[in-house]
Amino acid sequence: MKTALFDRLDELYPDMVDLRRDLHRNPELSFEEVRTPKLIAKFYNELGMEVRTEVGGRGVVAVLKGALAGKTVALRADFDALPIHDEKDVSYKSTVPGVMHACGHDGHTSTLLFLAKAMHEQKEKLTGNVVFIHQFAEEITPGGAKPMIEDGCLDGVDVLFGTHLWSGFPTGTIAYKSGRFMAAADSFEIVIKGKGGHGGIPHEAIDSIVVASGLVTNLQQIVSRFVNPARTAVVSVGSFHSGSAFNVLSETATLKGTVRTFDMEVREKIVTLMEQMIKGACVSAGADYSFTYQRGYPPVVNHEAETMMLEDAAKNVEGVNDVVETEALMVGEDVAYYLQQVPGTFFLTGSGNEERQSTYPHHHQLFDIDEKAMLIAAKTLGEATLSYLEKSSQPLSKIEGVNR
Amino acid sequence: MKTALFDRLDELYPDMVDLRRDLHRNPELSFEEVRTPKLIAKFYNELGMEVRTEVGGRGVVAVLKGALAGKTVALRADFDALPIHDEKDVSYKSTVPGVMHACGHDGHTSTLLFLAKAMHEQKEKLTGNVVFIHQFAEEITPGGAKPMIEDGCLDGVDVLFGTHLWSGFPTGTIAYKSGRFMAAADSFEIVIKGKGGHGGIPHEAIDSIVVASGLVTNLQQIVSRFVNPARTAVVSVGSFHSGSAFNVLSETATLKGTVRTFDMEVREKIVTLMEQMIKGACVSAGADYSFTYQRGYPPVVNHEAETMMLEDAAKNVEGVNDVVETEALMVGEDVAYYLQQVPGTFFLTGSGNEERQSTYPHHHQLFDIDEKAMLIAAKTLGEATLSYLEKSSQPLSKIEGVNR
Amino acid sequence: MKTALFDRLDELYPDMVDLRRDLHRNPELSFEEVRTPKLIAKFYNELGMEVRTEVGGRGVVAVLKGALAGKTVALRADFDALPIHDEKDVSYKSTVPGVMHACGHDGHTSTLLFLAKAMHEQKEKLTGNVVFIHQFAEEITPGGAKPMIEDGCLDGVDVLFGTHLWSGFPTGTIAYKSGRFMAAADSFEIVIKGKGGHGGIPHEAIDSIVVASGLVTNLQQIVSRFVNPARTAVVSVGSFHSGSAFNVLSETATLKGTVRTFDMEVREKIVTLMEQMIKGACVSAGADYSFTYQRGYPPVVNHEAETMMLEDAAKNVEGVNDVVETEALMVGEDVAYYLQQVPGTFFLTGSGNEERQSTYPHHHQLFDIDEKAMLIAAKTLGEATLSYLEKSSQPLSKIEGVNR
Amino acid sequence: MKTALFDRLDELYPDMVDLRRDLHRNPELSFEEVRTPKLIAKFYNELGMEVRTEVGGRGVVAVLKGALAGKTVALRADFDALPIHDEKDVSYKSTVPGVMHACGHDGHTSTLLFLAKAMHEQKEKLTGNVVFIHQFAEEITPGGAKPMIEDGCLDGVDVLFGTHLWSGFPTGTIAYKSGRFMAAADSFEIVIKGKGGHGGIPHEAIDSIVVASGLVTNLQQIVSRFVNPARTAVVSVGSFHSGSAFNVLSETATLKGTVRTFDMEVREKIVTLMEQMIKGACVSAGADYSFTYQRGYPPVVNHEAETMMLEDAAKNVEGVNDVVETEALMVGEDVAYYLQQVPGTFFLTGSGNEERQSTYPHHHQLFDIDEKAMLIAAKTLGEATLSYLEKSSQPLSKIEGVNR
Repeated sequence: MKTALFDRLDELYPDMVDLRRDLHRNPELSFEEVRTPKLIAKFYNELGMEVRTEVGGRGVVAVLKGALAGKTVALRADFDALPIHDEKDVSYKSTVPGVMHACGHDGHTSTLLFLAKAMHEQKEKLTGNVVFIHQFAEEITPGGAKPMIEDGCLDGVDVLFGTHLWSGFPTGTIAYKSGRFMAAADSFEIVIKGKGGHGGIPHEAIDSIVVASGLVTNLQQIVSRFVNPARTAVVSVGSFHSGSAFNVLSETATLKGTVRTFDMEVREKIVTLMEQMIKGACVSAGADYSFTYQRGYPPVVNHEAETMMLEDAAKNVEGVNDVVETEALMVGEDVAYYLQQVPGTFFLTGSGNEERQSTYPHHHQLFDIDEKAMLIAAKTLGEATLSYLEKSSQPLSKIEGVNR
Repeated sequence: MKTALFDRLDELYPDMVDLRRDLHRNPELSFEEVRTPKLIAKFYNELGMEVRTEVGGRGVVAVLKGALAGKTVALRADFDALPIHDEKDVSYKSTVPGVMHACGHDGHTSTLLFLAKAMHEQKEKLTGNVVFIHQFAEEITPGGAKPMIEDGCLDGVDVLFGTHLWSGFPTGTIAYKSGRFMAAADSFEIVIKGKGGHGGIPHEAIDSIVVASGLVTNLQQIVSRFVNPARTAVVSVGSFHSGSAFNVLSETATLKGTVRTFDMEVREKIVTLMEQMIKGACVSAGADYSFTYQRGYPPVVNHEAETMMLEDAAKNVEGVNDVVETEALMVGEDVAYYLQQVPGTFFLTGSGNEERQSTYPHHHQLFDIDEKAMLIAAKTLGEATLSYLEKSSQPLSKIEGVNR
Repeated sequence: MKTALFDRLDELYPDMVDLRRDLHRNPELSFEEVRTPKLIAKFYNELGMEVRTEVGGRGVVAVLKGALAGKTVALRADFDALPIHDEKDVSYKSTVPGVMHACGHDGHTSTLLFLAKAMHEQKEKLTGNVVFIHQFAEEITPGGAKPMIEDGCLDGVDVLFGTHLWSGFPTGTIAYKSGRFMAAADSFEIVIKGKGGHGGIPHEAIDSIVVASGLVTNLQQIVSRFVNPARTAVVSVGSFHSGSAFNVLSETATLKGTVRTFDMEVREKIVTLMEQMIKGACVSAGADYSFTYQRGYPPVVNHEAETMMLEDAAKNVEGVNDVVETEALMVGEDVAYYLQQVPGTFFLTGSGNEERQSTYPHHHQLFDIDEKAMLIAAKTLGEATLSYLEKSSQPLSKIEGVNR
Repeated sequence: MKTALFDRLDELYPDMVDLRRDLHRNPELSFEEVRTPKLIAKFYNELGMEVRTEVGGRGVVAVLKGALAGKTVALRADFDALPIHDEKDVSYKSTVPGVMHACGHDGHTSTLLFLAKAMHEQKEKLTGNVVFIHQFAEEITPGGAKPMIEDGCLDGVDVLFGTHLWSGFPTGTIAYKSGRFMAAADSFEIVIKGKGGHGGIPHEAIDSIVVASGLVTNLQQIVSRFVNPARTAVVSVGSFHSGSAFNVLSETATLKGTVRTFDMEVREKIVTLMEQMIKGACVSAGADYSFTYQRGYPPVVNHEAETMMLEDAAKNVEGVNDVVETEALMVGEDVAYYLQQVPGTFFLTGSGNEERQSTYPHHHQLFDIDEKAMLIAAKTLGEATLSYLEKSSQPLSKIEGVNR
């Protein structure tokens, strides 16, 4: 059955590319997705598969029931885009100014849809079921995963697999990691409240830009001085906005940013330190502030047995020439919520290819994927799914090796 | 004649307030003034005075010819507004979002119009002429003064007086200064070019916000360490904009600001130091930059004899209870160009009044004027004008004292 | 034999404390040790044990030959002190101003001496040999380990165990870690060369303190922005010296510090970044610099089998109530060199005890050890040594479990 | 008499140079002067002049009584040196390591001694008296001027003249300024109290060097943002000391520096701001601090009539080719105290000469004077003294012009 599945995916590849490019041209921001979930639902409807829309808000879930009884595997792909302006010079460039699929979710979606189509065609041979979870709003907390789970998308599911196309690894690489894999991803907003005034008369104002700039500099010390170097953490300011005229000192300056951690103790220490540093900066200058901190996704913790199963599966996939253990990543992912509920693993499918100009970092305005990576992702997810269903349908004694 | 003029100004005061409030409700940005010059021209037309519009672009100049031959005095008022959002809670609040008369130019305009009206009514007794210069675009270089002069607004003018309503002095104060009074006011724009990326993966990006923040901090050293403390200078960053998402590291950060100096040597040293510091910040982080520096208005240098004349005149004005010498101000004013061409003086009319909530700094979003100050300004300008015309029509021997 | 050894150590404990306090009163800086190695040699001479002095410079090595043939275990303790002024108020306070045993090496030495004495008394039952390595100059690169190894201190040694008394863990805890345990520890010196001058005339000088202060602040970004957060690194400035008068701007500022890493790639990236940041700081201010970077000890990498053996041994020691796996530490240790030559493990013996005021961080001017920890360290080293010698004297089949 | 005085000074010039070099070789720190006052007293004793030692501590005062009755002029020179190491390569280099005449006080002393000798030789023609004030401890508050005045050095004095050799003006220039001339010069000491620790374990320490470095950077904002740019002020950190080992995080960091102002309001605002910024820096990092601020010399305010008299006198001196008005200087001088008690003026005698390598800023380790400037200083002081005594001995009506 695997060979048939792989051959069919090879045939479907041009359509997979086509659909991905259509999504790339039409990106939709998190929590504002309309066209994309509609397109996904239509795809499943046309296949004649059971599909549920508006799951937890804007999610779409399709279920494939195999002809033979067995376990249930969930596969998850996210479909939202980012508030970044697409600067690529390609035919499938985003048509929405300031919005872009700069993280590869278009590829995730197309990958999962065509894997579903290929599996659906072979459902007579399928021992067990597959749930295709198309998730909205991964990029912004509180994210789509939590409401989709609350709306039942994991009901009856035994295991979950998911992947992220990854520009940091070359196409052909599958990277896995057991245990702590991705960070808790929080967000914050700081408003420094100085006193506006004339640019030439600073002593009658309180210069919010100078205060906020000093604060950005000071925040670097959280990681460099205050967090145990053995515990990974990141504090990043993603936006700094203040002032509307060159010759007017701005009353306020607004900083937005993100904190990434793996330990809840470190996370809380950072929140305390941030408030302390904001306060110190304001005491220094006689300014005031507001500070809001939103705790985001928990860390992604992969399950050991399932990660090993995925590692084995990846080695059997044509096109995969390297299966490597990766180090922990500071990115956040709400796939964390699913893996708190059911066993499973989330892995990376390399999509970096100099020739395809697909090695820019994620969230970069020139980000792109090597589309070949979608085929590899589809096959790896397919192989893992079929392996799991096969093994779990066998008598217990035979699968001992897996549960080590 | 002075008494008659002052009495008439007292009568016209309610109309002066009314017109000022109308202007306050309808502010127009520099170089975009349409309604205001039209309104000014209409005012003079209705008086039956000779008026020229579109002077040097959007300026309006009216001429009052006295019945008796004599010298020609020019009075100047500016009429543009600022890109600041009016946050006051008053009936005459700006109706244009993000645009506001936050510097008092509405008051200048109404003051000059009603002074013209009152003088016009007494032209039979007038020995000499008065030119009323209504200038557009004072807030942004290259300013309106230069093109208006090039378009002939100072032709035949012997002396020029002008005033700025000033929240830093209480209503009832006139402040003058001979020699260097206001600073050269330049503008600059710095773009730090880092490398965009994921907020959780800083080591693959170059964080333009961190680089630009460090630069803002470093720029403080120009005044604190590199400029002779005896030479006044100001370097202010008025706006800092970077990033559009909390979890994306922004590729670029843009700083806009102003430099104020009195010495051309200091100005050029600052330009060199700024470039050096920008370069240093970029070398440190492996970033790149662009830097543009626009030399703005020259310093305002008041003429000694005319300043002393103004000082004497102010002491004769009812409502003026304090005539003080002020220190040099770091604000720029394109009234500088007029005073490079003809003798004259530019002075401050106190408009600060706690009860009227008119003590906020200029360019503050709650800025307002004590309208009573307009009456004082009108009378002081009127007194100075009539004094000058009287004295200059007398035999030379009598005015020796003035020309010391 | 273990019971006898432990009982004897209990008896010797008061002498162990006494000797440690004598060493504490008489600390000697790295590479300047004279009294300490003499004292150590005398101790062994009095026991009648074979002892070699001036090993690799100032090291002392004693050998205990068991009555029964077997393997050879080396035990290592360092004996140098630090340039810190002892601020403790205790009877055994340092008598040398500015020099202090602020890292516990006095305890290491006394521990090893009395363990040697106790073992020596039981040498008739000993299957194999024990080499007691007393190392000089651990605190400063190039350290004493390398020359002692080159001078043969590891000749014939099969395995090495060593421990560090550790205030960060409570007395009663033994902490181990297999693989990368302690960091590569490098040192650097930066001299910022400004231009001296009068404190009131900054614009004629180049203020080296302002430049160096900005640099210290910027260096924080190396860890916070430029190093992969998943790879641990530390950049610390330990001393900053500039200027001799409050009213004179100092020509130069000298920074000394340390860099800790586990990856050679990260280490070299940091060297490059440091030079870049120093250069940028100097470009900004028109200053000059010199920069020297000394690559220090390599990372301490514990061997897996020996670490597990130590873990097991510790669990058998009376007084040990917690055997935990620790995370990697950013401190450097030249024990690294031994473990590059022979298998073995380096572990921590908790010595933190609030009641004994022994919880200050290492290198703190109030640092102290809970002396009870010396007894625990001696027993754990003794247990591990005897276990190893016993097991290695048995037929291979029996020790399979260890070599997993 | 003037011609005779000038001729005699020309003759004495080689001795003047010789004595200055002797002083240069033997500098003494403020409040530690022993050899210098002894040498000065011996000089006067040998002339047979009345001399008082230990005036106000270590001062020396000699009085020359003219044969004819008249007014009394005081001339003041200071004689202390600085804690700077002399780096010059000259025969008369300082022989005291770390101590140097880096401000020209050696030249002041020799100038005054030989002027006294020359005047003494002509005392028969002298109408009035001259008091030669040799002051100790000018460089460090509370300075020698105050106790010397309290000890009566100004008793009976009508006017005081003093000069400073000045590398910033070329030899041949005399620079004067009426009114506010030199700044109030205060000193401060800040101790940042962090928490010591291991250089590789920053999160268990509080890094006092990082806190103090951030503070130095922040202090730049006092002048750049918080003080009215029209009011001159300087805040300089002259020394920064922290840490004794590269790998130990230092518990404390000590900053010493100086504040220069002309307005007492600005001075007090700066003290408040400094405390605020120190507090803010400590709040940010969880550190503590101590802060002491010592208000030093008041500003030097020259008297108008005496300054004009000096200006006129300088124009008559051979060797003076430029008499210029200077701007205010940010250096402090306790000559301020004398000028609070009696009329007078303090002026600059240019001593900068590229060929003599005497253009380094004062307090620089390569500072030197062009010795020719001593001759010019002696003549200018002599000319001013004689002019004053002549004029004040004439009937009042004739000197009206001076007292305008």
